[in-house]
Amino acid sequence: MSKQDEVSQKIIDKSLRLFNTNGIHTTSIQDIMNETGLPKGAIYRRFKNKDEIVLASYAKAGLIIDSFMRESIENKNTVTEKVMAISNIYLDAVDNPPIEGGCPMLNTAIESDSNFPELKTMMAEAFQQMILFVESLLREGIENGEYTTEMEPRSLASHLLSSMEGAIMTSRLSLSNEYVEHTIKYTERLLATYTK
Amino acid sequence: MSKQDEVSQKIIDKSLRLFNTNGIHTTSIQDIMNETGLPKGAIYRRFKNKDEIVLASYAKAGLIIDSFMRESIENKNTVTEKVMAISNIYLDAVDNPPIEGGCPMLNTAIESDSNFPELKTMMAEAFQQMILFVESLLREGIENGEYTTEMEPRSLASHLLSSMEGAIMTSRLSLSNEYVEHTIKYTERLLATYTK
Repeated sequence: MSKQDEVSQKIIDKSLRLFNTNGIHTTSIQDIMNETGLPKGAIYRRFKNKDEIVLASYAKAGLIIDSFMRESIENKNTVTEKVMAISNIYLDAVDNPPIEGGCPMLNTAIESDSNFPELKTMMAEAFQQMILFVESLLREGIENGEYTTEMEPRSLASHLLSSMEGAIMTSRLSLSNEYVEHTIKYTERLLATYTK
Repeated sequence: MSKQDEVSQKIIDKSLRLFNTNGIHTTSIQDIMNETGLPKGAIYRRFKNKDEIVLASYAKAGLIIDSFMRESIENKNTVTEKVMAISNIYLDAVDNPPIEGGCPMLNTAIESDSNFPELKTMMAEAFQQMILFVESLLREGIENGEYTTEMEPRSLASHLLSSMEGAIMTSRLSLSNEYVEHTIKYTERLLATYTK
């Protein structure tokens, strides 16, 4: 990685933490300067404005979640084991989420609802990618005979991921991981209704 | 209702719409003055500061959702019918949610994550009340023999409500009600696994 790239990465990593922990709205370029120890010029040479840093930071967040998902299913045998491994990524949503500050999609979904359409579009696309990934696993399970053909992989994958988002949100609201735990339990129960 | 109460109610109703649509952060007392047509003094005679208006507005939101839930189950026979009726409240989460701007709990959960602990506590309590309501319905279903005793009403009610929150969030993010529709479908499937 060139020195130029390294500095850009540092800006992105530190900014992601700030945005995702304190909110995009409340994070200023000054905060990013303080956190990175870089002068204003070093930031503006690499990013046109704060919005560009936000988009680059949350693109990075998408890559991090994606690699968590892919790593979690390694060495798992059945599709149910794989889906359960993915569900377990957010097991400690309150104190130790994969990305500091909580689920990036959840955090940006509200803030960008009306004010930042590019970010909203980017996060909606990232969510679609997550669904596609789980959908392809479920489809594999139908093809290899683990699940009955009654299963609708697209709608089930969509439901499993949206319900996990809800569980993360309510766990963080209540400062208790119990909602994530419940969702993991009922995800398993739902999958069992299709298991041969 | 006295004139004094009427004015307070007007402030609360208009403010709730502003907070829930544009965000708490971005709504100023000036916005509330514009929306209500009231002078600053009329607002500050009734509320100490913006935070007090926020808390009163979201307390009102809790009452609105509560009455939607209670009305939805009227004239329903089985517990499954009742739970499904509650699930259907957010069927048009994108364009016609019960409260303009979307689920108040979802909207405040993120914004109040670190900055407004009283609001976070209030919304967490409102969520607990919703869970208790659904839990009591499920318990009724076990008692009347509709469901098997294998059902755990508390954890299932918690899961159903947290997954609905996720469905609302992802439907709004994607501008498509499909996630709410999926969650309704799988809620029914999950309840069927306990139905005698």
